[in-house]
Amino acid sequence: MKKILITGISGFVGGHFVHYLTSKDNKLEIHGISRTKPAWDFVNIPAELLDGHYFHQADLNDIPKIKSLIEEIQPEYILHLAAQSSVAESWKTPVFSFMNNTNIFLNIIDTVRLNDNAARVLSIGSSEQYGIVSEKDLPITEERAQCPENPYAVARVAQEHLARIYAKGFDLDISCTRSFNHCGPGQTDRFVVSAIVKQFVMVAQGRKKPVIQIGNGLIVRDFVDVHDVVEAYYQLLTRGIKGEVYNICSGKGYAIQDIVTLLSEMLNIRVETIQDKSQIRPIDNPRIVGSYQKIQRDIGWKPTISFEQSLLSMYQYWDTRLKDEMKVQPAGTP
Amino acid sequence: MKKILITGISGFVGGHFVHYLTSKDNKLEIHGISRTKPAWDFVNIPAELLDGHYFHQADLNDIPKIKSLIEEIQPEYILHLAAQSSVAESWKTPVFSFMNNTNIFLNIIDTVRLNDNAARVLSIGSSEQYGIVSEKDLPITEERAQCPENPYAVARVAQEHLARIYAKGFDLDISCTRSFNHCGPGQTDRFVVSAIVKQFVMVAQGRKKPVIQIGNGLIVRDFVDVHDVVEAYYQLLTRGIKGEVYNICSGKGYAIQDIVTLLSEMLNIRVETIQDKSQIRPIDNPRIVGSYQKIQRDIGWKPTISFEQSLLSMYQYWDTRLKDEMKVQPAGTP
Repeated sequence: MKKILITGISGFVGGHFVHYLTSKDNKLEIHGISRTKPAWDFVNIPAELLDGHYFHQADLNDIPKIKSLIEEIQPEYILHLAAQSSVAESWKTPVFSFMNNTNIFLNIIDTVRLNDNAARVLSIGSSEQYGIVSEKDLPITEERAQCPENPYAVARVAQEHLARIYAKGFDLDISCTRSFNHCGPGQTDRFVVSAIVKQFVMVAQGRKKPVIQIGNGLIVRDFVDVHDVVEAYYQLLTRGIKGEVYNICSGKGYAIQDIVTLLSEMLNIRVETIQDKSQIRPIDNPRIVGSYQKIQRDIGWKPTISFEQSLLSMYQYWDTRLKDEMKVQPAGTP
Repeated sequence: MKKILITGISGFVGGHFVHYLTSKDNKLEIHGISRTKPAWDFVNIPAELLDGHYFHQADLNDIPKIKSLIEEIQPEYILHLAAQSSVAESWKTPVFSFMNNTNIFLNIIDTVRLNDNAARVLSIGSSEQYGIVSEKDLPITEERAQCPENPYAVARVAQEHLARIYAKGFDLDISCTRSFNHCGPGQTDRFVVSAIVKQFVMVAQGRKKPVIQIGNGLIVRDFVDVHDVVEAYYQLLTRGIKGEVYNICSGKGYAIQDIVTLLSEMLNIRVETIQDKSQIRPIDNPRIVGSYQKIQRDIGWKPTISFEQSLLSMYQYWDTRLKDEMKVQPAGTP
């Protein structure tokens, strides 16, 4: 059985990817690395399907540990999901963000180079790499010059440059993504859509006044459902072209304030929107919408899940989770 | 007296910069940081001129140490020379190269951000950031897109992106250079011109057959004398425009094999040239020549020292140094 090593397995995309892999007939032996053990409450993976797979607790900044793990596992595939993927966090702790994006990726690919085990690597990047894009350049294609406008984006551009150098200069088998904003059940409320949906659930459950806090409501982002994302990652990992970079996106843009309106209409809940100044970033991209033409052409992937479907599944996730949290709290807890 | 902090002070440019500063009437209190103590054998700085200046032994990867040093010194200026600046080394040890270019710079500017002492920073970058440039785009201006083609260049691009983000997003007072190849007395023979000149000196001293080893003789580089470089750094540090990037170059290109021919004619020494395959790099830029129009326009700097003058001063340096080395060896040493 071929082996896949998944870094950052305990995260949001990691859980969905493992769910995807274990549902497939064509099995891979899964090895996961993360600082913390998986505790996925958003996917239901039967315990017997996790038999014969392995979790390794490690920090990707610990080079000797990573080296010995990769030497021991000898994976055929490496899906590098591990990242500090919040733009907001990167403004607060830029050094930590850089180390936990660029440096950890470099540690992985340099280990593959030295170990010479010919693993195929998928490097996950971000639409933030493009920076400020003018209206006439939308939807963004992969040819567009990159001009990162926040510490997170700088780290991702450096990661992709390193991937390209290792593919060209050291003949490593690496493809790259520029993944646009994800959404889906299980995403933490540090990310905008999840934060908004969670607030709607709290309103619906009567735990909050009908007031939704957002940051800059005018910025437009392209949200792609995590189920579509994991399908794209699997296809790229097994069939993507070496050295190439692929947008993963929905091709559609939503302004943050329009998400509030959309949810309000879908759920028939009237809310007021207020702006939380602390969520405004020093520099921000006004409008990001991607083109998925290249990945569709090369491997036939395209998004299949509508934004409304994503919002509904996220609503169900938060609804269940917040009710569960209430149950475990003793009555009268403030 | 205003204070300047110079990282990487013990290096080639560091020595020349301190020599330049201590020769000026308008004095700055110099604080130098380096892993190793300065041992400049290529500049003659009278001991009394070094009175009242300070050397701090530290590794720029040691964040708490750097933080306490900058808090203690509160410099008005920071000249960030510290770097692992060899392209060849970056192919051999890419992780080390990245840490000792990008990460150390990020540690410095993040300390300045947190410390809020409004130091003005000059970030040193490299012409390698441009990557492969077609003939029609020469001489290279700062507007040209960057496409780094080796691990060192990737690290330098990331450094400049970080500088830009810190200037725009955190209002730090940073200017950047893209410095083209340096040359001058005291440069180590890990760099091509110094390596060639050293071999000529060894031939002239009868310590080597008249055979000069080079890597790829066809690549063309723009070499700027270190004395011109330190003048540019001082002018940019004190008068450069915040957030701007400046080429520092001679505007002239020399093929590596033509340097051998030039020296052979200047010194009237006939040599044979052989190619050392181990010095060929996985990817290399065929031709790099820069434009110094922008820095000339903004602060009036232009190169003043011819390449022939540089070669002669490097010849004198190696001639003296190799003779001195002979003196300290007991007779009969193999």
